[in-house]
Order: sequence, then structure tokens, then C-alpha cells
Amino acid sequence: MGIPLLPPSKTPKVTVVGGGLGDPELLTIKGMKTLQHADVVLYDALVHPDLLGHVPPHAVRVYVGKRRQCKAFTQNEINALVVKYAQQYGHVVRLKGGDPYVFGRGMEELQAAQAAGIETAYVPGISSAIGAAGVAGISVTLRGTSRSFWVMTATTETGELNPELAEAVQTQATVVVLMGLAKLDEITALYMTAGRGNIPIAVIENASLPEQRSWVGTLQTIGSEVAANQPLGPTVLVIGEVVKHRILPLFCKQVPAVNTSSYTQYPG
Amino acid sequence: MGIPLLPPSKTPKVTVVGGGLGDPELLTIKGMKTLQHADVVLYDALVHPDLLGHVPPHAVRVYVGKRRQCKAFTQNEINALVVKYAQQYGHVVRLKGGDPYVFGRGMEELQAAQAAGIETAYVPGISSAIGAAGVAGISVTLRGTSRSFWVMTATTETGELNPELAEAVQTQATVVVLMGLAKLDEITALYMTAGRGNIPIAVIENASLPEQRSWVGTLQTIGSEVAANQPLGPTVLVIGEVVKHRILPLFCKQVPAVNTSSYTQYPG
Repeated sequence: MGIPLLPPSKTPKVTVVGGGLGDPELLTIKGMKTLQHADVVLYDALVHPDLLGHVPPHAVRVYVGKRRQCKAFTQNEINALVVKYAQQYGHVVRLKGGDPYVFGRGMEELQAAQAAGIETAYVPGISSAIGAAGVAGISVTLRGTSRSFWVMTATTETGELNPELAEAVQTQATVVVLMGLAKLDEITALYMTAGRGNIPIAVIENASLPEQRSWVGTLQTIGSEVAANQPLGPTVLVIGEVVKHRILPLFCKQVPAVNTSSYTQYPG
Repeated sequence: MGIPLLPPSKTPKVTVVGGGLGDPELLTIKGMKTLQHADVVLYDALVHPDLLGHVPPHAVRVYVGKRRQCKAFTQNEINALVVKYAQQYGHVVRLKGGDPYVFGRGMEELQAAQAAGIETAYVPGISSAIGAAGVAGISVTLRGTSRSFWVMTATTETGELNPELAEAVQTQATVVVLMGLAKLDEITALYMTAGRGNIPIAVIENASLPEQRSWVGTLQTIGSEVAANQPLGPTVLVIGEVVKHRILPLFCKQVPAVNTSSYTQYPG
């Protein structure tokens, strides 16, 4: 398995780049410039195809996506690929959706690169932890309404409900749940049991993309709302009084009352 | 006080744009394009001057910064300016540091614009809530170490310690405190009282700028570290076991032990 010698002008380097929320224009200028200087790009399923338009024609493109239960590569295999390609070709850009350091395992890949003596860098991206609410017209903090927000995934590594949800229910924090749709029933049950079924919640699908949809309700009502509309894309749950103060972008000036059955779809 | 008629080609519009973390290349492509189509830009103190380079020469530039105790304008005055300039000139871009919806009052300005019948839009930015940790080599979540992060300001509107800090101390969440330096003693006291003085903490100043500095320690040790170095720029506190796993960017491959007195300065 001979690996070709690296051209003398090339130094191995690995940069993890956050591709942002979904809309390819939510990539940072720095992320764009980094892609423009890539020798290899390893990219995920959630990365918008337009982002690859920034990559030079000669660069190697490798899809390492995993989605739901179907993994193309294990994390260890990706770590090994990152190292191998850097040693072989020079600058590897590891392009991930959102921010690579928010539930993204981006750091594990940089740790692997550093363990192999390879220089590393990180370019943050717009995370759905904040931006999904934003493009749905919701500020995760709002003066007088919320002083904090708490971001978590719905499940543990073994697929159980994240025990921190039970703690979050007891606080005044805006709660943002990533990858939470499959656990929506358990989450609403937690709030109902705590006597907080009247707290507003928004479910945001495909945030910032043309296919973006969002639904608002309370923890009591959201289950039937979502069941009727069957979101299939990536979703973010935003739970807290801030949802009541959401504003609709563009031309919509009326904020529907939170308890009505409201269905909203608008461009990202 | 005659206001000139708006040219027929102009429709009043207000867009809040997140300028990002500090480094002007952390602006999004969408933010850059929005600035390129501004008729008026209202900008804050924490906005990097290079961002104004994207604004067309004919556009009106208005500094509405407030910093520490010195306010150039009250929030109500800024709301009124946003409306007035949109009606007078067309597209007002309200450029704020970080993300406009994270402790930024960006939404209040859009609410004021909508109340005046003006079209609004929002462009998210890289928030220091996530990105400051990232550029200091810290992932706010790390598989096996942290399943969530909780972001808050250190004080309430009246200047007291945010009561949610006392709740956060009891959880396993990574805690991110914005604008927290003045309350560092009170925060460390909370953790010590809870028997958690050995939790790692990072203090990050001027995140992503050439002047970035960061210090790590535990809640027991960080006070003297910070006192010896006197940060003056905007700071973010990151509290939790994830700090122990930080990686240094660029050429530094050794992670100093968290309990040693470590002083780190590196480019953004």
C-alpha cells in the first residue's frame, strides 16, 4: 500500500469547518476561503451541495456521511481517513454541518490528527442550537422573558432519554433540543408531569433551507400538530416562553396566538 | 422636521445581521451580501471596523454603540432610529456583534420595525456562546464528557448575580457565562460552596481576534490567574470537564494539565 510522497510544497494540515445551518450562504467568509485552499474535502450528509462549489477542481472529495442508522464510516475510520489524506495530499478540510464542536465530534478528528503530529485548525459555523430558532423568528434569549438557554440532544449514546431533560424541565431556561423529534412524546410527558404542559414549544424542520417548516404550540398540543404534518428533515425543538414572542420574517406581521393550530412555511 | 420622500425604488426594510465573534472573516456570506445592499448601517461597539468595508460608499453609517456604563443611545432611541432611517432611506442593516438574538436585543428592534409596518429579516451570526470556546480549543459538548451546554449572562437586568447560576452549578451541563468577569468571584464561590471547586474553567478574552488570550484552571485557581493578567476585553467563561480536553490550535500539540498555572496566548 504505497502512499505517494507529499509534494514538497504541501504540509499536512487538518481544518474542521462548520458549514452552518443549511442555507449555503450561512457559511462564513473564513470557511469559504478555507474550502478554496483545500486539497481534500471530507464532507457529511448534512452539508449543502453548493458548499462544494468553493472547493478547487483538483481537490479530492470524499463523502463520509452518516445519517440515521446508516453509517458509511465509523468515527474511528473517519479519524484514520483524515490523517491518511493529510499525509498524502496536504490540507484536509473536514466540512461538517452546523458547528463542528456542537454535538459534532469535530474535536475527536482534530485530536486524531494532532496525535499523528499534524497541524490543526477550526473554523466555527452557525449552529442550529441558536440559528434554527433565529430563522424561525425566535430569540433564544429575550430581555424580560429568558436569561439563559440550555442546549442538549434528546438521547444519550445508548438511545435513552437524556437525563438532563428532567432537570431542564425544572428551570426557567429556554431549552433547545437537537435531534429530538423521535423523543417528542417522552419530552412532552416530562413537562406535563411537572405541571408545565402550557409552556410554548416550536418544532423547526430544515432550518434556513427553502424547505423550512415550523410548528408552534404548547407541550400539550404539539404532539398532534407534528403527527399531522410528519416532518422528515432535521428538526430542532425550542421550548420556553420566548416562543410566544416569535416574529415572522418578511411580510408577515401578525404573530399567531400560541394556542391556535398554526402551520407556517416560509423561505429561509 | 421634514423627512425627504423615499426614492420610488426603495422599500423600507430592516435586517439585523450578526457580525460574528470578532474576526471579521467570521461574518457569513449572507451577512456580507446584506451589508453590500445597505442604504444605512447602524452598528455597535463590538463590531469589527473591517465589516464596514462591505458597505457601499453612499450608505449612511451610524454608530449606536454602548459599552459598559456609557450608552450613546437608549434601546428605545435605537428602535426609533431604525424605523426612521428605514422610512427615510430604504434598507437599514442593523449590524451587531455575535448573533443578534443571543442577549443582543436584536429582536426588539425588529419588533419596533414591524410595529411601524416595515419588512424585516434576520441573518444569524457566530455567537460567542459557542464560538469563543471553539477558538480557544474547547468543544462545549464532547462525547463521553458533556451532553449539554447552558448559556447565560452573569447578571440580571438589575445587576445581581443571575439566579440560574445557582441551578447550573448542580447540573452536569457545560456552563457558558457571557459578560461574567465582574462576577467571577461570586461564581467561583457558588461552585466552592457546592463542593465543586475542582471543576475546570476557561476564561477567554477577545475571542478570535489577534488579541485573544485565554486562561484555564479550576474554580479554585482561576481567580488568582485572572487577577494576575487583568483581561480588559470582552470575556467568556466556560465551566465544565470539557475544558480539560481542550486542544491548542496550530502547532501546539501538548495540552497543559488543567491544574498548572497556564497562560496561553495565540492568534485567533
